[in-house]
Amino acid sequence: MSTERIFNFSAGPSVLPLPVLEQAAAEMTNYRGTGMSVMEMSHRSKAYISIFEETKADLKRMMQIPDTHEILFIQGGATLQFSAVPLNLIGKTGKADYAVTGNFSTVAMKEAKKYGEINIACSSEDKNHTYIPDQGSIKPSGDASYFHYCSNNTIYGTEWKYVPDSGGAPLVCDMSSNILSVPVDVSKYGIIYAGVQKNMAPAGAAVVIIDKSLAGNEHPLTPKLMSYKVMIESDSMHNTPPCYTIYMLGLVLKWLEKQGGVEGISKIKAEKAKLIYDVLDSSNLFIGCAEKAARSDMNVTFRTKSEELDDKFVKEATKAGFDNLKGHRVVGGMRASIYNAMPMEGAQKLAAFMREFEKNNL
Amino acid sequence: MSTERIFNFSAGPSVLPLPVLEQAAAEMTNYRGTGMSVMEMSHRSKAYISIFEETKADLKRMMQIPDTHEILFIQGGATLQFSAVPLNLIGKTGKADYAVTGNFSTVAMKEAKKYGEINIACSSEDKNHTYIPDQGSIKPSGDASYFHYCSNNTIYGTEWKYVPDSGGAPLVCDMSSNILSVPVDVSKYGIIYAGVQKNMAPAGAAVVIIDKSLAGNEHPLTPKLMSYKVMIESDSMHNTPPCYTIYMLGLVLKWLEKQGGVEGISKIKAEKAKLIYDVLDSSNLFIGCAEKAARSDMNVTFRTKSEELDDKFVKEATKAGFDNLKGHRVVGGMRASIYNAMPMEGAQKLAAFMREFEKNNL
Repeated sequence: MSTERIFNFSAGPSVLPLPVLEQAAAEMTNYRGTGMSVMEMSHRSKAYISIFEETKADLKRMMQIPDTHEILFIQGGATLQFSAVPLNLIGKTGKADYAVTGNFSTVAMKEAKKYGEINIACSSEDKNHTYIPDQGSIKPSGDASYFHYCSNNTIYGTEWKYVPDSGGAPLVCDMSSNILSVPVDVSKYGIIYAGVQKNMAPAGAAVVIIDKSLAGNEHPLTPKLMSYKVMIESDSMHNTPPCYTIYMLGLVLKWLEKQGGVEGISKIKAEKAKLIYDVLDSSNLFIGCAEKAARSDMNVTFRTKSEELDDKFVKEATKAGFDNLKGHRVVGGMRASIYNAMPMEGAQKLAAFMREFEKNNL
Repeated sequence: MSTERIFNFSAGPSVLPLPVLEQAAAEMTNYRGTGMSVMEMSHRSKAYISIFEETKADLKRMMQIPDTHEILFIQGGATLQFSAVPLNLIGKTGKADYAVTGNFSTVAMKEAKKYGEINIACSSEDKNHTYIPDQGSIKPSGDASYFHYCSNNTIYGTEWKYVPDSGGAPLVCDMSSNILSVPVDVSKYGIIYAGVQKNMAPAGAAVVIIDKSLAGNEHPLTPKLMSYKVMIESDSMHNTPPCYTIYMLGLVLKWLEKQGGVEGISKIKAEKAKLIYDVLDSSNLFIGCAEKAARSDMNVTFRTKSEELDDKFVKEATKAGFDNLKGHRVVGGMRASIYNAMPMEGAQKLAAFMREFEKNNL
């Protein structure tokens, strides 16, 4: 058994900062003199409430979340939010606008169709989601209860570089794969939600940042745990929250602060992404899957000229300690997910490995 | 800071076996030579699928779950199942029977009212839930889609000692607080579900054991993640499951096997409970809250003759290293939750402490 950690390019669940894991291990059987693990704490205990409140306060400060908005931790990941958003919001006009730019925005849109009329405000499906539509091509319906988009498309490797103008409807954004990687003006959003397992914590929760004025209009059949009103009023403790996941998020936020917060990490992530995109741009072997203007700094999708060579690359990369580089089956090729916790060294070494592979296989 | 672990009588989240926590800590940064934490693994990776499958197989073997039934891991705890059960099942006849014997069965019943007609088949509310109704007092409606009960009432400290005859309707049971503590004939049940944070794992999931023939009749507005059909067909991987919680459950099951499995632990837990109930039965100070015939082996509820003395007991017990003994606010007094992971020594020492306290305060 190897005792060395590898470079894990998984799209989610994904790499976590090593110091965070080390601290979690050190605190596992006895959290700071409490005589128990965080896993064993009553969610109503002083020790746990203090972890919970500190995590919320850190997230609020680091994302500069205004007092108009509340932070919720809800089990079920982004997928449960695909249902919760329309259940809570669509009743206002019976209609919602969706920007369809990848896999998860399509899934979210299809789920919303159960609950009301859906207008596809824009779509990149015509070019297999290799680009992000520009503002001019967005057609809001004018009477939507909300406008939904996904700011980073994990599978296709594209990222919105601007905040779309929804024509007045509250903006709802699935930021699962790029939250905390780039500064965001939260006040522009009705709801930001993110499954935590890509850029925040181990799988098991979604963070929901909601303008409180949007709560309270849910469909009468909304499961109680999915009611934003109930969750706001109970401070995410209508039932036992995913306590340990929230604790891990807290540790990740402390680590992020040491990287210079969101501002600091946004420079680091851009540098990491550039290392790999520079290889693609100067390569005669590798081809980027996404249009340049829409490239994601979180998920780099690329391929070679043949599936055989793609397979060879993934196999040799795995052997060399770069794991989970195989692309999603709907895109093929390769994908390097380089979330906040991927060390600079991982991006540097992958870039070097790619150049070496090209030399040997041209 | 103390380096010693205390005896944690929390009702949930609650104590976990120390060897399990130690193993989790040891495997935190590099799981068995994979070069990564279980928290960082793609849920589709070979390493993780192997953990997932082994956990399912262990649970199936230890609970002797027949092939007619499927095991699901769903985020949201028992609370989301309070909604999922009626959303998936009540459509058959539009009606369901609920046995109301405590806090969570009441909450489940109220949530179900959103989705259909509810018949209260029996209730212990007349005596503040201090007992479990006998079979003779149960009045099934005759055309219920299912019959719901909660096998152990965490807050009131009562436990069903028999499996109710539902009059033909599929039995649905919330076993959150006594699952894996006593052998169960799973074939008698349509659905068994349990929030994992009491007797199985850290908070963040429910285990749902479902007769597959019951799936496929969900209400059209059912959120996709709550559809039993979808979850059965995707083997709990419609979205990213709560991977680390499932891993921890796997470790707990391996530990449980060493205690003699469910048969073995059921003797141990009865012995632990007897230690404390014996104090109550021979005491001139302490009074058990539940009727003897209905006493729970998982949650022992008791009090003294005054609230002042209750407070004094809790305070002195906490100081002596027995944590979380304060009873739930709706019952008052004290509660000692002695789930599977509570060591025998914890029950022994608490019993001794109670006798000593009585001596000093009579």
